[in-house]
Amino acid sequence: MKIDKKQSREKFLTVFPQIVKETTDVLKSYGMPQDAIEWYTKNLNYNTPSGKLNRGLSVVDTYGILKGYETYDDFSEDEYKLSAILGWCIELLQAYFLVADDIMDKSLTRRGHTCWYKVEEVQEIAVNDAFMLEGAIYILLKKYFSKKPYYVKVMELFHDVTFKTECGQLLDLITAPEDKVDLAKFSLNKQMFIITYKTAFYSFYLPVALAMHMAGVDDESDLKQASDVLIPLGQYFQIQDDYLDCFGKPEDIGKIGTDIQDNKCSWVVNTALEICNAEQRKLLDENYGRKDPVKEKKCKDLFIALKIDDRFHQYEEDIVSKIRKNISNIDETRGFKKQTLTAFLDKIYKRKK
Amino acid sequence: MKIDKKQSREKFLTVFPQIVKETTDVLKSYGMPQDAIEWYTKNLNYNTPSGKLNRGLSVVDTYGILKGYETYDDFSEDEYKLSAILGWCIELLQAYFLVADDIMDKSLTRRGHTCWYKVEEVQEIAVNDAFMLEGAIYILLKKYFSKKPYYVKVMELFHDVTFKTECGQLLDLITAPEDKVDLAKFSLNKQMFIITYKTAFYSFYLPVALAMHMAGVDDESDLKQASDVLIPLGQYFQIQDDYLDCFGKPEDIGKIGTDIQDNKCSWVVNTALEICNAEQRKLLDENYGRKDPVKEKKCKDLFIALKIDDRFHQYEEDIVSKIRKNISNIDETRGFKKQTLTAFLDKIYKRKK
Repeated sequence: MKIDKKQSREKFLTVFPQIVKETTDVLKSYGMPQDAIEWYTKNLNYNTPSGKLNRGLSVVDTYGILKGYETYDDFSEDEYKLSAILGWCIELLQAYFLVADDIMDKSLTRRGHTCWYKVEEVQEIAVNDAFMLEGAIYILLKKYFSKKPYYVKVMELFHDVTFKTECGQLLDLITAPEDKVDLAKFSLNKQMFIITYKTAFYSFYLPVALAMHMAGVDDESDLKQASDVLIPLGQYFQIQDDYLDCFGKPEDIGKIGTDIQDNKCSWVVNTALEICNAEQRKLLDENYGRKDPVKEKKCKDLFIALKIDDRFHQYEEDIVSKIRKNISNIDETRGFKKQTLTAFLDKIYKRKK
Repeated sequence: MKIDKKQSREKFLTVFPQIVKETTDVLKSYGMPQDAIEWYTKNLNYNTPSGKLNRGLSVVDTYGILKGYETYDDFSEDEYKLSAILGWCIELLQAYFLVADDIMDKSLTRRGHTCWYKVEEVQEIAVNDAFMLEGAIYILLKKYFSKKPYYVKVMELFHDVTFKTECGQLLDLITAPEDKVDLAKFSLNKQMFIITYKTAFYSFYLPVALAMHMAGVDDESDLKQASDVLIPLGQYFQIQDDYLDCFGKPEDIGKIGTDIQDNKCSWVVNTALEICNAEQRKLLDENYGRKDPVKEKKCKDLFIALKIDDRFHQYEEDIVSKIRKNISNIDETRGFKKQTLTAFLDKIYKRKK
């Protein structure tokens, strides 16, 4: 697949208005009053298409790779639309998570806009709005896929990945609350569970698995081959994120890291906790997770002194070589393709933002 | 079905610990840390089995009626367990709604206990906990029903009814916010939509439809026969609820009504709005929905002066005679039974609490 990123995003976005129309048509069929229909329309438009759309686009692109297509022109109209709808279902799932996460984290902005629950007239209604974003997924699946042989598998996959993500979110919330620092609760094990469940399943495995079902390349052993690469890849991506938050240059990552002040259960602090001495531990206990730039600086200096960045580079080389080996051993005889996985790895390896 | 209410509740409750075990076993299989497993266990136990369980019990009892059983002894062990699990799935759905509703309504207590989100260590985490209560439904459906011919129908039914309930909740939230009274937004039409979607589908239609699927009495026309009675019945139940909140005796209903002070979009106020003159309307505009017992009394006196109670009794006689006529016309040739519907009606007609 030769993909122009800007073009592919624009093409993908053309499908979204149809999704809004079809889900709000359901409300119209109920005879729902106009103000409620307008509310749901705004909810969908405000929260769904404003991100990078990487997860949604991955469904379309992975499908193209599995079918051996060169460009989007090789897709039939129906193939493009159906793969894009599955992609939008992930974006709806993500919107559901993010609207809720922002409430729980008391965040103020998301993707450069006021968080939905912070919009004047919305407030707590955002909880129900999050539910209704999730609800749109099953409306779309029923409408477009109920006659497909993979309908049940796709529904179960959404249930399974949704629940896993919620499990990761739960562990994150009880391990690293923003207002109550307790580093004794942290560990690299918990951090690994959190990133695997909260991020890797829905961001990495789900797009590829959906495309595999749609392409009919969904033998259990092929799904396992995909998962065996994509889960470590998703973990690597998130650990890289944690590394960049602390060691990346603001001009590269486009923001100033806040993980230290936010008491994040990040790979950086957990690695430091594993190797620090009693005095350094005391420093972390007293300074990590506080809304205070001086305390933040103390933690950051300690992370530098402990050479956490070297450890990251070592981890990166190890995990990438393992992933590459796993990919090279992929059995393509049933139609699965290594390229679906290298496409992800190439985007991630040594990224600076 | 001859049912002793206390016994049937106790029997139904014996299934719940298995549900807790099986859903938390999923977390164990993920390798989730112990503190998170304990959290989910507490979430399930705190929020699910503490209500009247009428909805859950209705699945079991309706199944028994459809099979022509006299007592629970006629159920095979497997039949009891499966129908009870479907019943618990409704109770989980209700728990998911109620945890979220309490957050959105800023309620303090629920079923005589502190609302989950008000429990010291829970707070905003309750949003994710609500999601995980919903998640348990699909874990149970997959585990117990994935080999059944009605598996897909039951999943779709839960999706459909969940979304409808969320639509009803949305309209309620934007029509009758507690902190911003605007009676111009009210109407009997909206009130009817709210109670139909927010309550009738999941509380009345869902239990019967689930039992029908399990009993194999699920021809589209039979589901429609059920819905054609159960939706008006659910509307009647909720209108009765609104009537009792204002006109019921506290010693009968076991609580003091709060609908007027809470700015509820109730049948009582909407009926009053339809028949009141300009002066009476002014009184309502100035006094309804305020946290002030003097203002509340003024509204109540107006409702009495307008004889809203007489209108309720008229409505009650009309709707019940329509429902009885509908039930008497039910076609039982494919196995559906009128008794599944009269069982509901008899519990509701002229109830005082």
